Amino acid sequence: MCRYAAYLGPELLLSELVYNPTNSLVHQATEAMQSLTRINADGFGVGWYAPEISPEPAVFKDTSPVWNNYNLGSIASKIHSPCIFGHIRKANSYDPVTRENCHPFHRGRLLWMHNGDIPGRARLTRKVAEMADDVLLAKIRGNTDSELAFTLFLTHLPNPLERDPATDEMAAAMQHTVELLSTWHRESDGESPLETNFCVTDGESLVAVRYAESDQPKPSLYWYEGSDEHGRRRALIASEPLTLGKEWHEVPESSLVVVDTDLSVEIRPLRS
Amino acid sequence: MCRYAAYLGPELLLSELVYNPTNSLVHQATEAMQSLTRINADGFGVGWYAPEISPEPAVFKDTSPVWNNYNLGSIASKIHSPCIFGHIRKANSYDPVTRENCHPFHRGRLLWMHNGDIPGRARLTRKVAEMADDVLLAKIRGNTDSELAFTLFLTHLPNPLERDPATDEMAAAMQHTVELLSTWHRESDGESPLETNFCVTDGESLVAVRYAESDQPKPSLYWYEGSDEHGRRRALIASEPLTLGKEWHEVPESSLVVVDTDLSVEIRPLRS
Amino acid sequence: MCRYAAYLGPELLLSELVYNPTNSLVHQATEAMQSLTRINADGFGVGWYAPEISPEPAVFKDTSPVWNNYNLGSIASKIHSPCIFGHIRKANSYDPVTRENCHPFHRGRLLWMHNGDIPGRARLTRKVAEMADDVLLAKIRGNTDSELAFTLFLTHLPNPLERDPATDEMAAAMQHTVELLSTWHRESDGESPLETNFCVTDGESLVAVRYAESDQPKPSLYWYEGSDEHGRRRALIASEPLTLGKEWHEVPESSLVVVDTDLSVEIRPLRS
Amino acid sequence: MCRYAAYLGPELLLSELVYNPTNSLVHQATEAMQSLTRINADGFGVGWYAPEISPEPAVFKDTSPVWNNYNLGSIASKIHSPCIFGHIRKANSYDPVTRENCHPFHRGRLLWMHNGDIPGRARLTRKVAEMADDVLLAKIRGNTDSELAFTLFLTHLPNPLERDPATDEMAAAMQHTVELLSTWHRESDGESPLETNFCVTDGESLVAVRYAESDQPKPSLYWYEGSDEHGRRRALIASEPLTLGKEWHEVPESSLVVVDTDLSVEIRPLRS
Repeated sequence: MCRYAAYLGPELLLSELVYNPTNSLVHQATEAMQSLTRINADGFGVGWYAPEISPEPAVFKDTSPVWNNYNLGSIASKIHSPCIFGHIRKANSYDPVTRENCHPFHRGRLLWMHNGDIPGRARLTRKVAEMADDVLLAKIRGNTDSELAFTLFLTHLPNPLERDPATDEMAAAMQHTVELLSTWHRESDGESPLETNFCVTDGESLVAVRYAESDQPKPSLYWYEGSDEHGRRRALIASEPLTLGKEWHEVPESSLVVVDTDLSVEIRPLRS
Repeated sequence: MCRYAAYLGPELLLSELVYNPTNSLVHQATEAMQSLTRINADGFGVGWYAPEISPEPAVFKDTSPVWNNYNLGSIASKIHSPCIFGHIRKANSYDPVTRENCHPFHRGRLLWMHNGDIPGRARLTRKVAEMADDVLLAKIRGNTDSELAFTLFLTHLPNPLERDPATDEMAAAMQHTVELLSTWHRESDGESPLETNFCVTDGESLVAVRYAESDQPKPSLYWYEGSDEHGRRRALIASEPLTLGKEWHEVPESSLVVVDTDLSVEIRPLRS
Repeated sequence: MCRYAAYLGPELLLSELVYNPTNSLVHQATEAMQSLTRINADGFGVGWYAPEISPEPAVFKDTSPVWNNYNLGSIASKIHSPCIFGHIRKANSYDPVTRENCHPFHRGRLLWMHNGDIPGRARLTRKVAEMADDVLLAKIRGNTDSELAFTLFLTHLPNPLERDPATDEMAAAMQHTVELLSTWHRESDGESPLETNFCVTDGESLVAVRYAESDQPKPSLYWYEGSDEHGRRRALIASEPLTLGKEWHEVPESSLVVVDTDLSVEIRPLRS
Repeated sequence: MCRYAAYLGPELLLSELVYNPTNSLVHQATEAMQSLTRINADGFGVGWYAPEISPEPAVFKDTSPVWNNYNLGSIASKIHSPCIFGHIRKANSYDPVTRENCHPFHRGRLLWMHNGDIPGRARLTRKVAEMADDVLLAKIRGNTDSELAFTLFLTHLPNPLERDPATDEMAAAMQHTVELLSTWHRESDGESPLETNFCVTDGESLVAVRYAESDQPKPSLYWYEGSDEHGRRRALIASEPLTLGKEWHEVPESSLVVVDTDLSVEIRPLRS
């Protein structure tokens, strides 16, 4: 069970997501409060955009626990960005702890991260091998369900590696991805629960989903509605509230969270 | 273009393969003599068997250059084994440098390593997804052509993860694997050359192949016929002779090298 | 606050210290029961002896949490030894997480590990620089108080790098080392507590110490008196009992534990 | 023998120092043209300043060869800075390959890097232990001659960790540091050559030195005088010219290179 946090708004230091909040990602690495796994220390990743330099994001991922990575400690307080993805990983027993299996995953202008578990690995591998074109298939660098699901998502975008998708195109592809995973999961008996809290961005808008087929407590997801000290709106989505304030709202189960380029936040129920 | 060396015989220190010979793997990491890439420093791996303890091999792989890995430096002179695989990697531009992409690869009692390149990654991924059963497919931990080819090889063994294959079963599966790769490669035009110097062992016998469809010089492979200081026969197969002696013979192109449990070495032409 | 375990006796698999016991080092990495820090995941190390091959130990250390190191997972069940040191590290805020700062430390035939904290780093550095000869001083590879204390210990052994010390020579040097650290600590006011649970071995005998100047609970240390399934005596010293049995005894504060080559265990009060 | 490059001027992408030039640091990692060691692959480091965010630099260092570090590959083209230090390391046989031994080294607002070798490690350790105050001594995180020399340099600055030194203060401290190392080296016979190509910056000015006591060819050092495509002056200092142009000039032996805040470059002979 991993934890993640996503930010969209005025330029923010990476350290404001990773280190500084009361319940920062570093805190959640050893003391996650709403996770089945209190410790999430099998690697981490941070992705961010520098729009004045490139439409593609920078990604820094490593297999160390986030709390003792000196490189992150040094650069996180020297880099600010209008769009930041942060993730800490709890590896399952079969997906190795490698940089390439850490989140976020990167293709073209997009970043993707996941909290959850998609049962039926062999089936998912075959489905993606059938549906993805050669380019997308050859770009898979790790072996996680998360990266396979990202590839599945990309196959539902027009020219995924060539042009920036519209926010609604990302929302539609996310809806399709969850529908497919849900259908395949329902067709098979006795599998472990499907848990798919995905989050994707192009650096200007953001789409997340909270969906699980499980009797257990569903993986948690929250969204933040508030402003910075200058009154400028900002949007966050996180597995757990990073701070204590009232600005954090639980994302209803089976919902999409769509943050548009104007930073408006919309909660849409998933079609089922 | 990677380099590898395999040993079968009386117990030998790992350091006798990795560090001590004139043209050891450490030497080949910066000064490979018969490789298109003089430098092979994108990770390394050593696998060995301790038959008195377990039929499964131990595997130590890391992404560092082999020459500056202190753990290997410390343990290689304290561990001896009757069967050792050593590999140094030169990564291509698309397969990441992770431990899981280093050789040798391990399944059950078997170790596998590869020197070469198999074009058509997306096709290979799809073919393996079709042919491999759920268990073998879900065991893939990296994203290299080498590990996909190993999985293909395993699908041609009876109960690959349950029982120790006979030497001839390994030879037959190797023949089938090369035939399939060759067929798929011939069906497509304009691909880069197919280069498949594989090597597999169960700890007691060993099968290697030298095969390439290329007008360029084929990846080199040698076998060693000789004895230790006590006159006990030993067998080696290596991308390059590790020493200067006359005991090293070039493996003819399109040939299998079969080292049986009695350490007899047989060169068999590949059926075409 | 780190945790460690040391074994002396009939050949034992590394995995019997690291993975298999109820309260193994892997368990203590996330659930230490008698440590101020429940999580000890800033690197690990295992050292062992293969007396039939070399009088010097093999050392495998890495900065990853012990629970997700695949190399250790693979080799620990394929290597057995009559003398094993295992350590999991909790780094303080100023000593970096590097392989060279992981325990055990190695010089010649000796292994050393430490659980605790020695205040007054600059003073310790200067004292060691004054007292150690050029060879010992130049061998320091990290920057921890633990390695400096090891160097201090070595300066109290005759020809530390040339000959195997007698058990009593190790015990005397340990006594001297603690006396010096205690004296220096007493001379300065307002320092944090001195905590020095050291453990040293030459592969055949073993000396440990439990000593702290603190009002807080002292770092825990236990010794084990028992036999294997064949009735052969074996000795263990560990920060916490690895198993639930009655064979574990708390080491009294301010005591030396001396395990001689015949595996007899003697508890000696420290001279003060 | 390491290689380094330093930049001061209008904002430049990190990748323009590391990857893009004909003789970039990545190129020098395997094909250094003026180094005794063609291969410099025992770790790397990049330090840079974001003055709008902090007066302290960001530092990203790792033990991998610079050519296969995906994090650097991703962030180097997304970060630009007016002051960049880049270094690739060739480790000697006794200083371990750890992040903390990679260059540049960082204290307060300063970055430091070194190409060369300072014989007499034990002596240097003792001298620094005597001369440095507690704070500077306790900040040493690795065990290289380079970091010890940096500490020596800092002891010759007023309030080194509290205020930004003037350019001339850095130049004077550099002169003193070389004088001390030279004196100590002359007092001892039969040591290997002293080679001290240092480079230090506060993010706004830069001081480098080329000094060696050797009959062998001295470690190379060059400075660049030129402008960017907009005609804005920029200054570089590098072990080897990064490009083919005429703007590169060899630094005379036994000279200081002083680049002031106005980017003027002055070559000063070392007092002897």
